[in-house]
Amino acid sequence: MATLVLLRHGESDWNAKGLFTGWVDVSLSAKGEDEARRGGKLLQDAGLRPDIVHTSLLTRAIQTAQLSLAEADLLWLPVKRSWRLNERHYGALQGKNKAQTREEFGEEQFMLWRRSYDVPPPPIADDDEYSQAGDPRYALLPPELMPRTECLKDVVDRMLPYWYDQIVPDLSAGRTVLVAAHGNSLRALVKHLDGVGDKEIAGLNIPTGIPLRYELDSEFRPLKRGGEYLDPDAAKSAIEAVANQGR
Amino acid sequence: MATLVLLRHGESDWNAKGLFTGWVDVSLSAKGEDEARRGGKLLQDAGLRPDIVHTSLLTRAIQTAQLSLAEADLLWLPVKRSWRLNERHYGALQGKNKAQTREEFGEEQFMLWRRSYDVPPPPIADDDEYSQAGDPRYALLPPELMPRTECLKDVVDRMLPYWYDQIVPDLSAGRTVLVAAHGNSLRALVKHLDGVGDKEIAGLNIPTGIPLRYELDSEFRPLKRGGEYLDPDAAKSAIEAVANQGR
Repeated sequence: MATLVLLRHGESDWNAKGLFTGWVDVSLSAKGEDEARRGGKLLQDAGLRPDIVHTSLLTRAIQTAQLSLAEADLLWLPVKRSWRLNERHYGALQGKNKAQTREEFGEEQFMLWRRSYDVPPPPIADDDEYSQAGDPRYALLPPELMPRTECLKDVVDRMLPYWYDQIVPDLSAGRTVLVAAHGNSLRALVKHLDGVGDKEIAGLNIPTGIPLRYELDSEFRPLKRGGEYLDPDAAKSAIEAVANQGR
Repeated sequence: MATLVLLRHGESDWNAKGLFTGWVDVSLSAKGEDEARRGGKLLQDAGLRPDIVHTSLLTRAIQTAQLSLAEADLLWLPVKRSWRLNERHYGALQGKNKAQTREEFGEEQFMLWRRSYDVPPPPIADDDEYSQAGDPRYALLPPELMPRTECLKDVVDRMLPYWYDQIVPDLSAGRTVLVAAHGNSLRALVKHLDGVGDKEIAGLNIPTGIPLRYELDSEFRPLKRGGEYLDPDAAKSAIEAVANQGR
């Protein structure tokens, strides 16, 4: 049996402003920093000690890992990072206001971009101020792997190799694994773990800053579908709030 | 040609109090945090971008890496950690006041413990409050590798395998490597790099928070003995201050 803990980063400067973020590298807001520390406290109170941490290449997920681990006195844990755990690339929507986008393109198109499984937004231009073309952190990424937009299906496709090749081996070795990442890269992982359908996944929201624990069987499938939040009441309220975002 | 950057952590809570720290896991003081950020600023101003970071398992070195990299917008860099980069284990002196120790044991014994190459302090007892026996971060370390005291020679002996097996391969791959560590683990590395003699090393102090750049040849030896501090004037004053510590 293996233990996997998922932690979605807390509020960023752009969440607070209602902007599509995606791969734009914004920092946590003060509230997001508090959420990360609270996540670390919840880990500690639950006596849950990860042996290794995986993060995306985005500052807000890395900060979340660092602040929560510092709170739990676990700053020394080994850490691995990958672009494969990054947030969904929001294409040309990156940097745009969510409410304005909804107004400009209408509710249907807006929800299609936000929640459809396989409809990506228009791709971002390389010379767009919110493009990641030329960002040194992706310098070693072959150009054909560098996304210019993504739907959730794209995220599942690029995330799964990391799950199989990097996370599962750690779990196999008996390690408790913490993954500090993003709303959509974690939804992609939960979709895989729980076998959530392509339509059903649209309604699944993961709250920020509340560690979600999965106990996995020998085939790395959850013993309990959906896992368990370390603070179930806070998770329930937060899930409802996320569902109403952009309204 | 390869580039290596050494960064010694800034003031910790115990440096400020004049206590022997060694493997005791104390945090940076507010001044130490500022030093780390300044180190990051110096990297950025010098246009020096590491590709990978190596730290010890001690919080003060990890914090130094994180704060300096955050300052330089490089939080996403891959990082490796090892006990082999830890500070010298100060044995039974851990937790003791430096000035009091000097008074109790006399100048000669004090300087022998602090600066001799091969005389370790008495070993720490496993049930001492400042022992690391039972610390989960060393749980996978075979007991015969777990130090109870160390002289600088011991640090050289346990640090060098990490240099050869983990750092040199990164340098070989053309990566610029940042090592965020401690006064004595960095002295051990500098001793090796510059071929400093066993006696001469006693007079070598590395200032805190000022990145020290070495350009290395194809045999991973410095093109310029001693390397270059990114802020040479500040380094000079700081070296003089360290030499007077405990007086």
